[in-house]
Amino acid sequence: MATVKEIRLKSRPSGLPTRDNFEVAAVELRDPGPGEVQVKNLWMTVDPYMRGRMNDVKSYAPPFALGEVMNGGAIGEVTASNDPAFKTGDLVQSQYGWREAFNAPANTVQKLDPRGLPPQAFLGVAGMPGLTAYAGLLRVAALKDGDVVFVSGAAGAVGSLVCQIAKAKGHKVIGSAGGPEKVSFLKEIGVDHAIDYKAEKDLTAAVLAGAPEGIDVYFDNVGGAHLEAALNAAKLFARFAICGMISIYNATTPQPGPSNLALLIGKNIRMEGFIVSHHFDLLPKFIDDLSGWVKDGKVKWQETVFEGIDKAPDAFLGLFSGENTGKMLVKLA
Amino acid sequence: MATVKEIRLKSRPSGLPTRDNFEVAAVELRDPGPGEVQVKNLWMTVDPYMRGRMNDVKSYAPPFALGEVMNGGAIGEVTASNDPAFKTGDLVQSQYGWREAFNAPANTVQKLDPRGLPPQAFLGVAGMPGLTAYAGLLRVAALKDGDVVFVSGAAGAVGSLVCQIAKAKGHKVIGSAGGPEKVSFLKEIGVDHAIDYKAEKDLTAAVLAGAPEGIDVYFDNVGGAHLEAALNAAKLFARFAICGMISIYNATTPQPGPSNLALLIGKNIRMEGFIVSHHFDLLPKFIDDLSGWVKDGKVKWQETVFEGIDKAPDAFLGLFSGENTGKMLVKLA
Repeated sequence: MATVKEIRLKSRPSGLPTRDNFEVAAVELRDPGPGEVQVKNLWMTVDPYMRGRMNDVKSYAPPFALGEVMNGGAIGEVTASNDPAFKTGDLVQSQYGWREAFNAPANTVQKLDPRGLPPQAFLGVAGMPGLTAYAGLLRVAALKDGDVVFVSGAAGAVGSLVCQIAKAKGHKVIGSAGGPEKVSFLKEIGVDHAIDYKAEKDLTAAVLAGAPEGIDVYFDNVGGAHLEAALNAAKLFARFAICGMISIYNATTPQPGPSNLALLIGKNIRMEGFIVSHHFDLLPKFIDDLSGWVKDGKVKWQETVFEGIDKAPDAFLGLFSGENTGKMLVKLA
Repeated sequence: MATVKEIRLKSRPSGLPTRDNFEVAAVELRDPGPGEVQVKNLWMTVDPYMRGRMNDVKSYAPPFALGEVMNGGAIGEVTASNDPAFKTGDLVQSQYGWREAFNAPANTVQKLDPRGLPPQAFLGVAGMPGLTAYAGLLRVAALKDGDVVFVSGAAGAVGSLVCQIAKAKGHKVIGSAGGPEKVSFLKEIGVDHAIDYKAEKDLTAAVLAGAPEGIDVYFDNVGGAHLEAALNAAKLFARFAICGMISIYNATTPQPGPSNLALLIGKNIRMEGFIVSHHFDLLPKFIDDLSGWVKDGKVKWQETVFEGIDKAPDAFLGLFSGENTGKMLVKLA
């Protein structure tokens, strides 16, 4: 039997998580049982929504259990199979998350057809973050011809695809991200007006500098001051897709909402929160569209990669200090 | 020539307006000129949105000018006419607001067919407040079978009609208003669970006491703590029609928004602001439906009436201390 490592939730964070909230455990990996497959994980994902699962509160995703492995998306390779549908070497997607290898009932993992994309793309641009961008922009915000689009967290896994889908459809895009490196990436992917929010005192003015006429669509990954600026810069009948509020995920006291929320009334703004799992019906159409955009060179993506399971907590923590440009990933093998 | 009184904006308020912001002026009323009608106002309306017009800022309604009459809806009677379409004694609706009588081009006033309702109803239940309730509940919040409805400012001109439309359509309704008298009125109009918010420490608990299963629709006239409670009590896919935020209209410093706005995401809540003028297309259908409900005894309304133009500022100021149950009106003749 081999020994493999996994990451467990050791304690629940108050505010910003630290390395001490995680522990690395070595476990013996037995042979797969009847109907099981054995999978060696190649890549695992860390995502902002996992912060919520570290709290002991019911939300749309159940909390992680103390002392147990943190689950989440991963791409792996079958190393042994007791199910005729899988053979050694098959690429699979699973939710067994933060571990180097595992045994699991074969019907709880999905075979992956990479369609010419690198396998880890299915944790990012072609996975849940990608579908989140697609559903949020096209269905929730109901993007229509001529809309001016503002995206916060624009250099992240979700935000950078929102920008590029909007550009592929011919829209003017204002993107905000933190630091010159991310701003360079935004320019590279065609964002018309890239804002380094860390260098701006007045976010509203920064948005209006790029869109003097105001914005029609706001894709919110951040909340806080970005949401307030978007309300100020919104045109009549603007639509806001509220995808994430990473600016407040680690707050230990209630964070006040935007002080200008009454603008919703006079501007007839629609603000709609969403989570991707209610939009899985769009997945086939999304993958079709994405393949086309990738082939036409209209969609690029970046990855920030940490190597080795021991680094998974660092990768996760890096999300909250903005260390990633594009998708934050952990390479396991 | 007769002397008539009018109310002018004397100074712009900072925070809560006072009597000193208004002045009563006596003006000579000449005979109507060519193409003009002369109208004696019988009723005038005061509404919360007028507070915004007292500030010198551009919004959906233009600011009142200093030293000039405050405009607004009124119902009057033609006392002289130089236009063949109007004769003495005709009932008319106009926007010449806070004055006892006026001359105006005939095409700027509208003849009123009261359809068996008292004329002042067209400043309330059958007027803009009524259409606001109708459009907000049925179109903006997209009320559907089985929805549980929460209404703030539920004893007001708009809120009380929202409650009754929802009841007429068979819904469970939770209404919040301030004080035992308003709560009695809510019970009288069939509200299932009436909250006296002034007597409650925990508004979320108060809402959930009436709707343990949560709410599907929130009609917001108030903002602030009510909006926060509605977010807490909302079910998945709830829709919020944001009509007014009277709790913050007089604030002199920015008022923080709800601290639980991130609930929009996990609960997939849609929050949409609106103003009635974008929904005038619904007016004929609204008047039809309302006539039916009134005939069937399904809609009642209350009025709080101040008498005489001198009392118009008091009536207006009373809106912000909650002195009205139902529509606040000024009877001029």
